[in-house]
Amino acid sequence: MALRAALRKNCALTGLFSQLSSSSRHGRVCVSPVLVAQQRNNSTAQKIKVDFDQSTGVAVMRMQNPPVNSLSLEFLTELCISVEKLEMDKSCRGLIITSSQPKVFSAGLDILEMYGKSPERCGEFWRAVQEMWLKLYSSNLVTIAAINGSSPAGGCLMAMTCDYRIMADNPRFSIGLNETQLGIVAPFWFKDTMVNTVGHRHTEMALELGLLYNPSEALKIGLVDQLVPEDQVLSTAEKTMAKWFAIPEHARQITKSMMRKATIDKLVSSREADIKNFVKFITKDSIQKSLRVYLEMLKKRKA
Amino acid sequence: MALRAALRKNCALTGLFSQLSSSSRHGRVCVSPVLVAQQRNNSTAQKIKVDFDQSTGVAVMRMQNPPVNSLSLEFLTELCISVEKLEMDKSCRGLIITSSQPKVFSAGLDILEMYGKSPERCGEFWRAVQEMWLKLYSSNLVTIAAINGSSPAGGCLMAMTCDYRIMADNPRFSIGLNETQLGIVAPFWFKDTMVNTVGHRHTEMALELGLLYNPSEALKIGLVDQLVPEDQVLSTAEKTMAKWFAIPEHARQITKSMMRKATIDKLVSSREADIKNFVKFITKDSIQKSLRVYLEMLKKRKA
Amino acid sequence: MALRAALRKNCALTGLFSQLSSSSRHGRVCVSPVLVAQQRNNSTAQKIKVDFDQSTGVAVMRMQNPPVNSLSLEFLTELCISVEKLEMDKSCRGLIITSSQPKVFSAGLDILEMYGKSPERCGEFWRAVQEMWLKLYSSNLVTIAAINGSSPAGGCLMAMTCDYRIMADNPRFSIGLNETQLGIVAPFWFKDTMVNTVGHRHTEMALELGLLYNPSEALKIGLVDQLVPEDQVLSTAEKTMAKWFAIPEHARQITKSMMRKATIDKLVSSREADIKNFVKFITKDSIQKSLRVYLEMLKKRKA
Repeated sequence: MALRAALRKNCALTGLFSQLSSSSRHGRVCVSPVLVAQQRNNSTAQKIKVDFDQSTGVAVMRMQNPPVNSLSLEFLTELCISVEKLEMDKSCRGLIITSSQPKVFSAGLDILEMYGKSPERCGEFWRAVQEMWLKLYSSNLVTIAAINGSSPAGGCLMAMTCDYRIMADNPRFSIGLNETQLGIVAPFWFKDTMVNTVGHRHTEMALELGLLYNPSEALKIGLVDQLVPEDQVLSTAEKTMAKWFAIPEHARQITKSMMRKATIDKLVSSREADIKNFVKFITKDSIQKSLRVYLEMLKKRKA
Repeated sequence: MALRAALRKNCALTGLFSQLSSSSRHGRVCVSPVLVAQQRNNSTAQKIKVDFDQSTGVAVMRMQNPPVNSLSLEFLTELCISVEKLEMDKSCRGLIITSSQPKVFSAGLDILEMYGKSPERCGEFWRAVQEMWLKLYSSNLVTIAAINGSSPAGGCLMAMTCDYRIMADNPRFSIGLNETQLGIVAPFWFKDTMVNTVGHRHTEMALELGLLYNPSEALKIGLVDQLVPEDQVLSTAEKTMAKWFAIPEHARQITKSMMRKATIDKLVSSREADIKNFVKFITKDSIQKSLRVYLEMLKKRKA
Repeated sequence: MALRAALRKNCALTGLFSQLSSSSRHGRVCVSPVLVAQQRNNSTAQKIKVDFDQSTGVAVMRMQNPPVNSLSLEFLTELCISVEKLEMDKSCRGLIITSSQPKVFSAGLDILEMYGKSPERCGEFWRAVQEMWLKLYSSNLVTIAAINGSSPAGGCLMAMTCDYRIMADNPRFSIGLNETQLGIVAPFWFKDTMVNTVGHRHTEMALELGLLYNPSEALKIGLVDQLVPEDQVLSTAEKTMAKWFAIPEHARQITKSMMRKATIDKLVSSREADIKNFVKFITKDSIQKSLRVYLEMLKKRKA
């Protein structure tokens, strides 16, 4: 399967167990001080390349975290800050997210952030994953995913937060929330995002089986909106952006918020409980053991 | 786009901003005294023509408010009273809604009801829009939309309240909630009705972009149920009605209520707040200015 | 219609009126003592044949309640106990549900359980129907419906509780919740299960008209997942099971629960009120009269 191919080269992984009923209200849709501090310490790292064209109002954000754009704490922090800066720039109206790495959009959450780490560090990491989702899913910008490679797990989540998804029509690429295949569980807000995109039944099948779809299948169920030849993904995204810019901005933003608010509020109101659940799950001996086995397998393959 | 073609000839417009969280309980699914009084004053106007066939139990309601069946306060009031009369007539079991105007089913809410009017009058108008939706969406009658022309915005909403939608297969006709294109926002109950019809993702795209669909596209996403040649729209509606009449009536009515109750209750429990939101939005200087520009454009086109 | 064909040979019927808002908390997802006692009294009856293959972990449950696998109290009780036993057997991981009767998967609830019975008995019966749904819809096992015949009403409900549905590609077979055609109403949890499977709009149409779909139509709207020649239904189910077994079990189970929990909780929290509603409805003179007419019609046809 394409999944295995995509994962063969990396140690990225995503989606963790979480079933929430609590209602702490600490969550906020902003970059937390912790994240900002983190970023300062790593300011030399350039894992996100943003090209903003003042004349068009479109920013192209290229993920360049070799080899497979794994979503590490550092990477997520840089990504959130970049999005925040663009949100604050009034001349920026649209954001295209794409990858600088060959064959991969993003392989999802970085396993190394979950293996052998302290509970505090795991919690910090999970907060950054939440932050990325909250920022992108609630963004006032027009967001388009230019999916120029495989996009499993957290990579698929990132794509699903966008207003529109254009994927390279290469049958070797795949996209989906495949967490279950790795023995872990997509949290409720990954699930909610997918239900909003492809409906309840497709989500049930996809999540129970950890399905990865090739581009044609993804188009058929509505997981992506359009397929184009690999070398036209970015240019098509730019053309599509023009169509979205023709819509009165304020009305579009209010409409987007109306469509997504209930889903966003659900995480915002239970954010701390979601972190607690994640940390409890990921630090279990059995899960840590699974991760070690998986990491060792990856090392052998590299050798 | 067909949208522009449909709008070129009229000053109808629909769909206003509304995000509700309040819970006033003043809403009732009935024609308010205000509406009834309104109707008496205009009893000479015959904007709704109802042909009720006692032998079949089917009423055909033809909208004839030239040029494009704009939904004015007067027109909505007459429509609500007509529906109420049919509901109370035990021999009436089904309602077909269609248009007497060429090329247009209904072009939606009448802009002139929103421009330069007092807050009180705007509120009265909005209550009538709510009333129309509540009456039709909760009707015990079998309701079929015989969509024999374009049906943007409020016209699309009216069609979506029906149990079944038959559209003329003319590629120049279009249907959709295109409010966003005009800088305004479909209220939450327009959105909920569309989600119930075509699902979350199609609604998100449709509302963010203010999409109008040609008949084939509308059929594909399920916004209408059937396409027929233009001259067979009404006869097909009548044949379809017979199929629905074959179902035990009481069981069908309870089932319909079970499917729609949650959506209806949401507006009923926040009706006053929805009106307040609408009035606040529509009387804004910026919105009034947009409406003036739009009206002037329409005048120039006519000239 | 296939419906009539399927019903011609039996007195099975399903789906009763229920609109709940109460919140009694007596419901539990387990076999009640009443059901267990019932089963003991009928232990000689073998209406459910279970073949469990220890080597594969797959149990095949064959319904053999001639002529059409009507869901009587006795049959439902035996079915629930069988499922419970398999759930408790750690070596069992998957359950295939199929029929030993020709041309029929299950024709749904047994009318004779609803006609001329005491309110207490009716209530006991309805609790068993709830129990069947709760057990199957929340099962930790991988459940596959091998639908080798027509499956109206309660038969369709049973199929919809499964993780995957494979149907015999015979155009004479049909599947759907057709309660409305018989003058009764599918309860809210039948409706919720169908919405989760085919979405809101298809469910609205299907339930209002009591639609039965042939296999191709059922596949098209997603009511079943796969069609195969009649003689390959069971073997395909077995092959499919292997695919599901490849997924880490614990993660799959948590995911399944996450997808279905809200729907299940809704019935669990209003179970007693749902029973009360059913008993009140079914013991009405008008409904009892309908059932008598229907039963007499069936008798005449047999003669």
